[in-house]
Amino acid sequence: MKRVYNFNAGPAALPLDVLKKAQEEMIDFNGCGMSLMEMSHRSKDFDAVIEGAEANVRELMGVSDDYEVLFLQGGASLQFAMIPMNLRRPGKSADYIDTGSWASKAIKEAKLGGDTNVIWSGKEEKYVRVPKADELTFDPNAEYVHICSNETIGGIRYPEFPKTDAPLIADMSSEIMSRVINVNDFGMIYAGAQKNIGPSGLALIIIRKDLVERTPDSTPIFLRYDTHVKAKSLYNTPNTWGIYFVKLVTDYVKSIGGVAAMQKINEAKAAKLYDVIDSSDFWRSPVAKDNRSIMNVVWRLPSEELEARFVAEAKAADMIGLKGHRSVGGLRASIYNAVPAEAVDALCAFMKDFEKKNG
Amino acid sequence: MKRVYNFNAGPAALPLDVLKKAQEEMIDFNGCGMSLMEMSHRSKDFDAVIEGAEANVRELMGVSDDYEVLFLQGGASLQFAMIPMNLRRPGKSADYIDTGSWASKAIKEAKLGGDTNVIWSGKEEKYVRVPKADELTFDPNAEYVHICSNETIGGIRYPEFPKTDAPLIADMSSEIMSRVINVNDFGMIYAGAQKNIGPSGLALIIIRKDLVERTPDSTPIFLRYDTHVKAKSLYNTPNTWGIYFVKLVTDYVKSIGGVAAMQKINEAKAAKLYDVIDSSDFWRSPVAKDNRSIMNVVWRLPSEELEARFVAEAKAADMIGLKGHRSVGGLRASIYNAVPAEAVDALCAFMKDFEKKNG
Repeated sequence: MKRVYNFNAGPAALPLDVLKKAQEEMIDFNGCGMSLMEMSHRSKDFDAVIEGAEANVRELMGVSDDYEVLFLQGGASLQFAMIPMNLRRPGKSADYIDTGSWASKAIKEAKLGGDTNVIWSGKEEKYVRVPKADELTFDPNAEYVHICSNETIGGIRYPEFPKTDAPLIADMSSEIMSRVINVNDFGMIYAGAQKNIGPSGLALIIIRKDLVERTPDSTPIFLRYDTHVKAKSLYNTPNTWGIYFVKLVTDYVKSIGGVAAMQKINEAKAAKLYDVIDSSDFWRSPVAKDNRSIMNVVWRLPSEELEARFVAEAKAADMIGLKGHRSVGGLRASIYNAVPAEAVDALCAFMKDFEKKNG
Repeated sequence: MKRVYNFNAGPAALPLDVLKKAQEEMIDFNGCGMSLMEMSHRSKDFDAVIEGAEANVRELMGVSDDYEVLFLQGGASLQFAMIPMNLRRPGKSADYIDTGSWASKAIKEAKLGGDTNVIWSGKEEKYVRVPKADELTFDPNAEYVHICSNETIGGIRYPEFPKTDAPLIADMSSEIMSRVINVNDFGMIYAGAQKNIGPSGLALIIIRKDLVERTPDSTPIFLRYDTHVKAKSLYNTPNTWGIYFVKLVTDYVKSIGGVAAMQKINEAKAAKLYDVIDSSDFWRSPVAKDNRSIMNVVWRLPSEELEARFVAEAKAADMIGLKGHRSVGGLRASIYNAVPAEAVDALCAFMKDFEKKNG
């Protein structure tokens, strides 16, 4: 069995022990004589899976009873559409902060349906930082303020989150459960599972209970938060395999000591990589130092030719997924929760060696 | 490794060989050194998977180039909402035929958004049949006619499909690829994967190209068919695991001789079961004989007590999923493509034995 060092941006690395357990249980889950994929989503055995996943999310992130936890299909992209449909009532507006590719996609969707204020954009600076507190003026008519807390493509994140009067809504797809946050600071948090907590085809939604009641009557049933809240994510058949993986991955995060322990490991991994990048002029980080993501580390080399060589030689050394996103170029290592420290160590060693040969 | 006889209505049985192959490849897919779940949906290896799945669907169902094939999240339930949003233009209506629980759900969603004609309903007869051709009058203003081709809960299906001037749209979730149909008779066919072609969290959509162009401009980006057509189902990260399974399951259907061969097997399985049901007054089929589903076989016993005993004793004999849907009671065996003939044989033997003891 071959395993590479996996720096993919998403779908991304999963903990090896989680994959092994799923492999073991693949054909006969829990002694039921069938695969989890072959079981009813309304069976007792699956109840234990989805309830366990929710309980783990609540425990790991400190989610109080003031919030609902949902497991929906459609990834973060469906949430870009559902958020304005559900949470921006007629005659009201919504504030959005534009920090990069993913924030922009959310904005595009919001603009289609109603009054949308882009209260700050990093576009002209090429998305190298998030706004400072004194750069933000909120619309008093806004129903919520939307941010992308970590931009997977740009490699930036909010070290601290904006303080807002309207509920703060954050797309945390690429950093969910990678660092300790206070859920109570948010009206809603959502994340596509395929970066930090599972396979693709699933989104985790954490939404404050009062926000669930805002939805206009004309909103399609399937696209209403209250539909899924009432049905405890089982209005229709959910992605049962994805939810099972969230359970397994969150079991794993608990086993290593929870999100605080994960954060320490993540900060140490990121520090090693940024140390190499900062160690010489051969490497260059394009982003503001205090906004650097600890999940998606982006950097440049002196030329695109060298960058292409780097990606090719890294791949030959079984380090996968290091090419920057096609929209920005350069290099990127996504070092999510499931990427082990040894992968980062191997990458750092490879970089030092590459610099010696090409620097 | 234990394996039961799995008569679940969905999520449902998968071919054992498919599960074994997925288990084998779980940690190192195709020699890539990572799980398929850990791979980019834009990688060459995944391209081969999704293109292979589409090619198999086209080959098995005879889908011409006049149609697009999409793999979307949200199951059939999201389609209930997307169909009227995309295909019923302002000022126009849509015709729906109400044959049971699933058709009703589609109707409920359609009514929220605009003019919806329920041109026939089997509700008062308790959904025991589909309409005859001469019972249907279509609205000339209707943009499409919607049917559920096989009702999973009621256990009825259309032996032949209505002839319509407006495009015919069919929810085929519980019978897709179980019998030969002519795709050209339809404007659109869709199916949640979790009954006949894969795990949950995925829907297969086959849509005629001219219909994709109807969508009103105000429709959210993620909820437009043209968004997903342009991006070849990769507008956002799809359910990669689900698509992989559609590839494996369709490979399996091809290996046994395609849909025509599958249909023969399915008809033989269903005939055996209906023969037992018809063999004595102990059993009773509530549905019209010529509308009987070959996928979901429903029947009754003389009392609810006997039905409960049947389910319990069957479970003890490792036959799972035989309880009728909670909304209608009784008994149901879902005998999808992946349910082997031996499972049906075992069930028939069990039924005869049960009748001897309790009849």
